[in-house]
Amino acid sequence: FTAADTASLSALFVNDPPRDPALIVRSARPCNAETPAELLVGKPITPPNHFFVRNHLPVPVVNEDDFRLEVEGPGIPDGTSFTLAALKQFPKVDVTVTLQCAGNRRSDNQYHRLVRRPPPRRSGRRRIRHEVAHAVFDGAEGYGASIPIAKAIDPLGDVLLAYEMDGAPIPLDHGYPLRAVVPGTVAARSVKWVNRVRLSDEESESHWQRNDYKGFSPSAGGTVDYSTAHSIQSMPVQSAILTPAEGARVAPANDPGHTVRVAGYALSGAGRGVFRVDVSSDGGRTWVDARLQEPDQAWGRRWAWTLWEADVPVASDAAEIELVCKAVDEQYNSQPEGMLGIWNARGVVVNAWHR
Amino acid sequence: FTAADTASLSALFVNDPPRDPALIVRSARPCNAETPAELLVGKPITPPNHFFVRNHLPVPVVNEDDFRLEVEGPGIPDGTSFTLAALKQFPKVDVTVTLQCAGNRRSDNQYHRLVRRPPPRRSGRRRIRHEVAHAVFDGAEGYGASIPIAKAIDPLGDVLLAYEMDGAPIPLDHGYPLRAVVPGTVAARSVKWVNRVRLSDEESESHWQRNDYKGFSPSAGGTVDYSTAHSIQSMPVQSAILTPAEGARVAPANDPGHTVRVAGYALSGAGRGVFRVDVSSDGGRTWVDARLQEPDQAWGRRWAWTLWEADVPVASDAAEIELVCKAVDEQYNSQPEGMLGIWNARGVVVNAWHR
Ligand SMILES: [Mo]
Ligand SMILES: [Mo]
Repeated sequence: FTAADTASLSALFVNDPPRDPALIVRSARPCNAETPAELLVGKPITPPNHFFVRNHLPVPVVNEDDFRLEVEGPGIPDGTSFTLAALKQFPKVDVTVTLQCAGNRRSDNQYHRLVRRPPPRRSGRRRIRHEVAHAVFDGAEGYGASIPIAKAIDPLGDVLLAYEMDGAPIPLDHGYPLRAVVPGTVAARSVKWVNRVRLSDEESESHWQRNDYKGFSPSAGGTVDYSTAHSIQSMPVQSAILTPAEGARVAPANDPGHTVRVAGYALSGAGRGVFRVDVSSDGGRTWVDARLQEPDQAWGRRWAWTLWEADVPVASDAAEIELVCKAVDEQYNSQPEGMLGIWNARGVVVNAWHR
Repeated sequence: FTAADTASLSALFVNDPPRDPALIVRSARPCNAETPAELLVGKPITPPNHFFVRNHLPVPVVNEDDFRLEVEGPGIPDGTSFTLAALKQFPKVDVTVTLQCAGNRRSDNQYHRLVRRPPPRRSGRRRIRHEVAHAVFDGAEGYGASIPIAKAIDPLGDVLLAYEMDGAPIPLDHGYPLRAVVPGTVAARSVKWVNRVRLSDEESESHWQRNDYKGFSPSAGGTVDYSTAHSIQSMPVQSAILTPAEGARVAPANDPGHTVRVAGYALSGAGRGVFRVDVSSDGGRTWVDARLQEPDQAWGRRWAWTLWEADVPVASDAAEIELVCKAVDEQYNSQPEGMLGIWNARGVVVNAWHR
């Protein structure tokens, strides 16, 4: 980059707001910033200033007075649009939703024992099933994504066009003035700064719908054919340890009944709740049943995560203890032990046991 | 048992019909009989005479002319009932549904490396969330089970009271004259010989709802407290190899490109389809993408299984080849590698990689 390049690139990001210094910035432009684990412990609701930021492009300038949400689709008159004031006339509902990146726990994807083996034969290009129709969300900054129409119109699906987050106007980084919120679905479909909703026979044409956010076989290797794979919508059952931190010192113990307090989160996609979280301090040979702090949500609409804590035994002579957690969701889906079966080049939908 | 005991027990089963000799009978009374794998290969629809039989009690005598389905619940007049002729006046719908036992693949549950370790401390008795309401099905023979009311009344949930199977009256072994069919849900909730539907704030009081068909942590051990665990409703993502059979001889091969044809099934619960099936001949280090024969069903209502086949490479010098399969469903849930995290005393919801 020349100095001129840098200056013109910087100019694109002038509307990016200041961020809470507590966030861990993985990349500044576009902003990709994580919440430190310790700020999530035991808090069912993450405060907006601590909510993770995953932008794919610069934050757009959207003037609330000029804002229009365009709506397009079969049977909808051309030029149909809504001001923000008009949208606020619709019944207001509050829904508690956990948003999770497709790339959550991507760092666990780094290990891949297959890299030096020859690529296996593919058994044939798979036919990808076409959905009858999709609801496509376009963002003011150029991002776009879609969801199956069946999810969009499901009266129990709780899909929102949100203008508030935690009781205040939605922050600039999170989609001001309007964001799609698609409960039970990967956050990549909850389009920020949404200014158009289209009903279409095709998925969103965006890069992120077509050539990103899809899962692949471990054997698909590093160069993948996105047209053969399926868009991530609902995420699988997931859990992670938030505390103690990696490498933390826990109190020395000489009594055989000594335990360490472990806390974390668990969630599943598609409105499925969490039935159980198992925590181990011996690599998964024995498990302690965690105490769950379950959201008070209806069957099939359990969109919010479950926080948990457990007191796990620690052997008195252990110098190092490896903690492991895994969750079981309402469908009795569980997490795979390791990355062997789920590693993928894109590092998405990583839900192996968390160690 | 005395001879008199045996005679009176036998008398209970006089209404049990003859079964197809092809079935593998695990226990005769009550009948628990499996379909041999080779009869399932490549057949999306299992013929009724080859459909697995899992009865918990003797087959009851139900006279179609005297049959009444009683319906009870808040707001429903006392004594409400329907004859079979009356039920047939309701719109008839055809739904293709795969039914799966909670104990499918139970034999894979026999290995348990934890048996000689001391039981871990439990981290506290968990609170079990109560559903607002349940639809309870009672069978004429004494079996009973329930499902969440949200599933029962979901217009896209496709729950049926079925009087036909594959175009003919439902066979005696499968619930003649009426069976509840609960798509996407463990077969144990599809109550046969159903003669009463009740709406209740409580789950079915039956043994099979309260003290059976629940999953537990591997560390819960052999004596479990059913009141602390959740009823199985939707089953997790599952797959299995149907052919070649265990121990089958495959053609010797001296060329490095030699493959063996592997075929099986995959399915998930809750109407989720199957995105991918991976098949390995090297213990999971490399995978071949199977060709899928997907049911033509709508998003969220994919109740039928997906048959698949794959041609996997076999090393020319291998004396024995271990085949492995695993599936990925539409929620990107996948199967755990082994039994370490999912072993349970009851042997239910076993969905480790199939070897
Ligand atoms: Mo993401
Ligand atoms: Mo079953």
